[in-house]
Amino acid sequence: MASSKEEVTLLGASASPFVCRAKIALNLKGVEYKFVEENLRNKSDLLLKSNPVYKKVPVLLHNEKPISESLVIVEYIDETWKNNPILPSQPYQRALARFWSKFIDDKVVGAAWKSVFTVDEKEREKNVAEVYEVLQFLENELKDQKFFGGEEVGLVDVAGVYIAFWIPMLQEIAGLELLSSEKFPKLYKWSQEFVNHPVVKESLPPRDPIHLCETQFLRKIVWSVECGLLGSYRSQVEGS
Amino acid sequence: MASSKEEVTLLGASASPFVCRAKIALNLKGVEYKFVEENLRNKSDLLLKSNPVYKKVPVLLHNEKPISESLVIVEYIDETWKNNPILPSQPYQRALARFWSKFIDDKVVGAAWKSVFTVDEKEREKNVAEVYEVLQFLENELKDQKFFGGEEVGLVDVAGVYIAFWIPMLQEIAGLELLSSEKFPKLYKWSQEFVNHPVVKESLPPRDPIHLCETQFLRKIVWSVECGLLGSYRSQVEGS
Repeated sequence: MASSKEEVTLLGASASPFVCRAKIALNLKGVEYKFVEENLRNKSDLLLKSNPVYKKVPVLLHNEKPISESLVIVEYIDETWKNNPILPSQPYQRALARFWSKFIDDKVVGAAWKSVFTVDEKEREKNVAEVYEVLQFLENELKDQKFFGGEEVGLVDVAGVYIAFWIPMLQEIAGLELLSSEKFPKLYKWSQEFVNHPVVKESLPPRDPIHLCETQFLRKIVWSVECGLLGSYRSQVEGS
Repeated sequence: MASSKEEVTLLGASASPFVCRAKIALNLKGVEYKFVEENLRNKSDLLLKSNPVYKKVPVLLHNEKPISESLVIVEYIDETWKNNPILPSQPYQRALARFWSKFIDDKVVGAAWKSVFTVDEKEREKNVAEVYEVLQFLENELKDQKFFGGEEVGLVDVAGVYIAFWIPMLQEIAGLELLSSEKFPKLYKWSQEFVNHPVVKESLPPRDPIHLCETQFLRKIVWSVECGLLGSYRSQVEGS
């Protein structure tokens, strides 16, 4: 168990769903920490020194010891501060939690990206179908639980912040329907419960699709605008 | 702790480095298990039912409960059978072990593949340089330890079976030098220690580059032969 004298710093970028995972985990535990907003176009020496392999956020510094990779960070937080467990206690349930959180990274994140940033209509339909396929697995896995972690937010929920908060913005920008209440009633309901969970809510950045996407994915967005992909969204925003 | 009455079955393919990870972990713990060799071109109903998401080996069945994804399986084994720990006990060391084993999957496996199966000379040089870059990180991380786990085999070593046993075969087939004693003296020494560790040794398939690669990667090998990539190797083998 960590003592109260510890220094906890999170190097991050507010727009990043991966950074948000670390924030949620720290907030679930009630850990006091300092958040350092990184300029990803001009990364700090501390970031480059702390994560020389990937040079990416998030990096958690605990008494100056750096930890990288969001899911590794979440497990570290869970093992260091024992209150409000994020992973289940039983090995089999822990394995399932690791499996599904890895699934979100390996399958959902990439598929959602592709579907949003593909211009070719046929290719896009194929990519959207892939998103449906992977989300269906999660719809089935959720069963009738409030959260993937059961009554409380767990590892898969934390990993899934990308689905609950970022996918709705991406689909809004691109004019797609990915996570709808008709197609995925359980997952949609979960996403609402999750983003409205008090600890999650305080961990999320303000909901601002263009800003959040611009900050992190500027080049792709610019390219999409050039391709006319964002036309419908832009006209709505400018008209309001 | 598991009782002695349990049923442990590993669905696998001997040629797979990912299956080998699960074997090493089970053997380190001294767990008795049944190994079922899957025909990957005609997968069993049990495999398809047990891993409906990826339909891949390895799958560990523990009292009929299925667990997929090799690193998830290794952690499950470590948490279920407590003797001969594979992960360290301290959260920070555990985080590092998870970070580096994920690094092997995310960076080393893909880079080695690309370098072996690229025909274009310039592209290949670039890919080989990428392998050197990622292996250098591991060379540095190893420091002067016998294993990544210290005196005993740990998670990163188990994940690294791909580097210690498969990469030397891949480089032999392709006539490349990836893991050499000159370039990576510590990592090379580690690879020798590791494959000669008694438990690891009994977990490895017979060293047979063409067979091991053919079984798992038939199409790429065939394509490489067609491109003349395997010419030098073939002539050596046929001449012996």
